[in-house]
Amino acid sequence: MKNKKVITAGIIIIGNEVLSGRTKDINTSTLAKWLNLLGIEVKEARIISDDESIIIKTVNNLRKNFNYIFTTGGIGPTHDDITAESISKAFNLEYGFHKEAYSILEKYYKPGEFNEGRQKMSKMPTKAKLILNPTSGAPGFYVENVFCLPGVPSILQSMIGGLNNVLIGGDPILNLTISLRTVESEIAKSITKIQNKNKDVEVGSYPFFKAGKLGVSIVVRSSNKNRLDQCKSEILEFTNSKNIEILEEV
Amino acid sequence: MKNKKVITAGIIIIGNEVLSGRTKDINTSTLAKWLNLLGIEVKEARIISDDESIIIKTVNNLRKNFNYIFTTGGIGPTHDDITAESISKAFNLEYGFHKEAYSILEKYYKPGEFNEGRQKMSKMPTKAKLILNPTSGAPGFYVENVFCLPGVPSILQSMIGGLNNVLIGGDPILNLTISLRTVESEIAKSITKIQNKNKDVEVGSYPFFKAGKLGVSIVVRSSNKNRLDQCKSEILEFTNSKNIEILEEV
Repeated sequence: MKNKKVITAGIIIIGNEVLSGRTKDINTSTLAKWLNLLGIEVKEARIISDDESIIIKTVNNLRKNFNYIFTTGGIGPTHDDITAESISKAFNLEYGFHKEAYSILEKYYKPGEFNEGRQKMSKMPTKAKLILNPTSGAPGFYVENVFCLPGVPSILQSMIGGLNNVLIGGDPILNLTISLRTVESEIAKSITKIQNKNKDVEVGSYPFFKAGKLGVSIVVRSSNKNRLDQCKSEILEFTNSKNIEILEEV
Repeated sequence: MKNKKVITAGIIIIGNEVLSGRTKDINTSTLAKWLNLLGIEVKEARIISDDESIIIKTVNNLRKNFNYIFTTGGIGPTHDDITAESISKAFNLEYGFHKEAYSILEKYYKPGEFNEGRQKMSKMPTKAKLILNPTSGAPGFYVENVFCLPGVPSILQSMIGGLNNVLIGGDPILNLTISLRTVESEIAKSITKIQNKNKDVEVGSYPFFKAGKLGVSIVVRSSNKNRLDQCKSEILEFTNSKNIEILEEV
């Protein structure tokens, strides 16, 4: 088994609308699933407010701790979209019209419709690299290891694929889920034993209520398929020995 | 207008299942909406992994910055439920069976069913105060300003009401939403003017796609109803002058 370094990421969700409870964040889940396939593990996510000093502090703090940082939100045309200017300040870079971004947006809009608000969306660190936006024109951007994406989930989802060849990941993080008709307290001991025997594999236990019935999903994660399979057979062995019904294996 | 101190909160979502993307966090939204009604503003939320040293560091860091901290997740019976022990360590408090919690759980389960896994759910800082659980017995707990709740959303939702008389909030944070048939870049300038004229009120602008059509929600937040109404009338004035269709006022 090769010992590959773990490639890590941090996520920064920027937006008062998430902190006020108005909007439920689904971008963390989208980004994490996509990054897992690239062999990049999300280690922390933070939801912060539209506040320049907080954005700068959080970005500068986290970008040292993780290989990659992804921010979402705050790159639109309105007064509360302050991510691009904050990132410029975090990196001490000039903030202004980005030539390529300006040109993309100028072509995207009909003549006469490229107004001040829309032009603002091409303001960012002038030396940033762009993340193309196949949905609504306005690009995201990145500086060093910090990637800035929009907050609207469908637009974000359409943009991340463009980064597959930019990011350098590790082995994809594989996972399997075995859902059981039981409750956590009945299997806690056995699962603890399996986790202790397989310390290099992450074993999680998650209770659920589905169709009015209780169950537990055992989730096993590793970038090594053999180790995953070994854990799986140990789980199936104990469920079998205890006559626990297996509802689903994914 | 009285000048009330802003009462703040931080949220710590503990769980690898959220960082892996498997589970979408909805507890932040639940907690934030409930806290707003109590006049408590969520200033930051963090999603962290099931890692003792990270939990301790995050709790000890955030509890100094905010009036209240809410953690979710990691208080169940399995090996990956390490919140209670981590909180004990963060506060340098004895971790062990909590008499009252043990007694609650002993009564909750049928004779013979109060097994080791279930007993574990009564282990916490022995001097913690309890947060009762009307859904599934196992209580949450709090130490000083740190409140520990379960991760399962329906259980969490059933427990928070019990804290309404424990938390000391400020004036409820009111909000109103005006949804417009427009795009952000058309209204960016006018909204900026309104925000600049009303600096004590938070004005946010959020694009949406609904039923295949684009729109923007203007969200205004303040604990002062008069200031909210003033902003609202300024927004209605400019949308009227620009002939922008109002889709909804909530």
